[in-house]
Amino acid sequence: MEREQNVHIHLSSPAESAPAEEHSFSRKGRRCKICKRPAYIDLPQHNISLCEEHFDEFFVRQVERTIRRYRMLPPRAKVVVALSGGKDSLVTALVLKRLGYEVLGFHVDLGIDLNDYSPKSREAVLTFSRRFDIPVEIVSLKEEYGKTIPDVYKKEKKICPICGMTRRHLMNVYALKAAETHGAYALATGHHLDDLAAQLFANVLRWDFHYLAKGLPVLPPEDGFARKIKPLALTSEFEIVAFAQLHNVEFVRCSCPLGKDAKFRKYQSMLRAVEALSPGTKRYFYQRYTEIAHIFAEHAPEARPALRKCLVCGMPSSSPVCSFCRIWRPEEAEAALRQYRELTLAPTTGGGPDADEAGTSAASSGAFGASEEAPREG
Amino acid sequence: MEREQNVHIHLSSPAESAPAEEHSFSRKGRRCKICKRPAYIDLPQHNISLCEEHFDEFFVRQVERTIRRYRMLPPRAKVVVALSGGKDSLVTALVLKRLGYEVLGFHVDLGIDLNDYSPKSREAVLTFSRRFDIPVEIVSLKEEYGKTIPDVYKKEKKICPICGMTRRHLMNVYALKAAETHGAYALATGHHLDDLAAQLFANVLRWDFHYLAKGLPVLPPEDGFARKIKPLALTSEFEIVAFAQLHNVEFVRCSCPLGKDAKFRKYQSMLRAVEALSPGTKRYFYQRYTEIAHIFAEHAPEARPALRKCLVCGMPSSSPVCSFCRIWRPEEAEAALRQYRELTLAPTTGGGPDADEAGTSAASSGAFGASEEAPREG
Repeated sequence: MEREQNVHIHLSSPAESAPAEEHSFSRKGRRCKICKRPAYIDLPQHNISLCEEHFDEFFVRQVERTIRRYRMLPPRAKVVVALSGGKDSLVTALVLKRLGYEVLGFHVDLGIDLNDYSPKSREAVLTFSRRFDIPVEIVSLKEEYGKTIPDVYKKEKKICPICGMTRRHLMNVYALKAAETHGAYALATGHHLDDLAAQLFANVLRWDFHYLAKGLPVLPPEDGFARKIKPLALTSEFEIVAFAQLHNVEFVRCSCPLGKDAKFRKYQSMLRAVEALSPGTKRYFYQRYTEIAHIFAEHAPEARPALRKCLVCGMPSSSPVCSFCRIWRPEEAEAALRQYRELTLAPTTGGGPDADEAGTSAASSGAFGASEEAPREG
Repeated sequence: MEREQNVHIHLSSPAESAPAEEHSFSRKGRRCKICKRPAYIDLPQHNISLCEEHFDEFFVRQVERTIRRYRMLPPRAKVVVALSGGKDSLVTALVLKRLGYEVLGFHVDLGIDLNDYSPKSREAVLTFSRRFDIPVEIVSLKEEYGKTIPDVYKKEKKICPICGMTRRHLMNVYALKAAETHGAYALATGHHLDDLAAQLFANVLRWDFHYLAKGLPVLPPEDGFARKIKPLALTSEFEIVAFAQLHNVEFVRCSCPLGKDAKFRKYQSMLRAVEALSPGTKRYFYQRYTEIAHIFAEHAPEARPALRKCLVCGMPSSSPVCSFCRIWRPEEAEAALRQYRELTLAPTTGGGPDADEAGTSAASSGAFGASEEAPREG
């Protein structure tokens, strides 16, 4: 089932906005609107400047209002936060803790050694966990499944959809487990306004009603899927970088060395350009969308295939064996499929990733639909 | 009544794409897909290159298909074409004539002497008219109303909405007259795909259902309004420039010296960047929109004020005297309003431009709506 936008946390490009050293987010001479002390940050979309203390308060209240607006969590709920080691997910966890939620961290070690990407990410998550006293569970692909994302990359051309599917699968499995054993209410990810607005832009460019129907910051729980929330949905990447610096959060600054989603980054930078012309446009674009998304849902085609349980892992899948198991547990997948074929006498494709988990975003999967007039991939 | 998008023909910026001298639109070495002669133009969105002859045929057929797709005109109809002197409107007239329609040209001399803008525009229209044997009627603001756009500019800050309202009013009056006296079926303008896609993008960014409901390439005739059509709606500016050069159409290359709609141009250049990444995106974005616009219409607020007839000119207006007459016939407008007030004993505002004609595009009027969360103007 295609139920989450395929925005890769590790593909966002903090390098563009996250400075390696201390950085001022305010133009010289500006003062805090509230206390008149020297400003730490200018927020043109709100037409204010704020000092460190008042920005901190503002940031946390903004996330609190987002959680309330979309009814993401009940007070003091337990919540699983998917921690990539980047600023977005770490800040999500930090703010949720500040707001009184009980945070359970979860990290997938992808085994990407190029540029020391995965070791650094893991280390950032562990450092964060110790410093802010947030428990974290780490799943290592290498340890659990005997191979890594680069091992799969050698066989598959498009690694981003597979990496995204893998992380979503594992996060979902962990969140369901945490719901059962700890009463965790939802799975939170660090998707921010820049991610969601760029994704929305991509989906609008092709009027993809299927995705336009479900780009919301809350996805309700469904059979086999945990409730998913995006507490930073109305917070810009710029504010997140400033908040991370304010709290000296050490995060991984490099982007994934395997990812090259140029189009998505282009959309993000275009929306930044629009934002510079008319501060507040990006937020209005996304927030107003969340109010009218039901219209797209009413007109979305019912193309979703019926879901069954994967014969290997039991998770929801549109084919007998889910794409996660086909990639990461190939022997078990093959055995299950063989048995299935014998039982049903009906051949299955057993081929590419199925609809539920891989490449669920039109932007990154390149699935422009079958129309003869659909644009070509560049 | 806000019924047309406020895309200013004279604000498009041909300078960006229209070369002053002969220009090749094909990369060296490419050949015509049909006859294998050296190519004149590459069309990445269709994945073809074409020689002069086959591009000419392709271009005309593309407009023919657009006219048929949106049922713009019956065969051999008479059609008024608003000629600004720029490439878009001249090419519109030329192609319509090629397709067997009877073209009646109409030009408004705005009296903008800066950079010789209006004299050059008028001259381009007259040259075109003689060369292609297309009759043209010219209305000079100076001669008819004793003042020019720059005269109004001295009093008003935002001239573009007023200039647009003025041209739309005069075009509509002429088209209605031509319908009565010559049986003219519609008023055609030179809006092209780049214009319409950028306008659509602006309206989507603010989810403006009112404008999203009516960005279509055909506006049906309504009481007091002529039928309006945009035959180049699915043709890119790039193709228009190449077609104009092919036929040695002499057009005004400078943009209006008074217009500075930076935001609209920014949107156009952003969509060009997207197009470069994925050829065909721009057309898909707009064309698919025309198929789903009815959804926006179903959900658009019925905010349109009831229309009456302007007490001075008799054209549809949301207030007793229309904005055209308030600007261009102020004495008559004042007298009519005085009489109206005496008769009704109800004071009217008599103030800013009314909803029917001025600033009908959210993008250029800067009307972001009253929501507290609407973005601020940059």
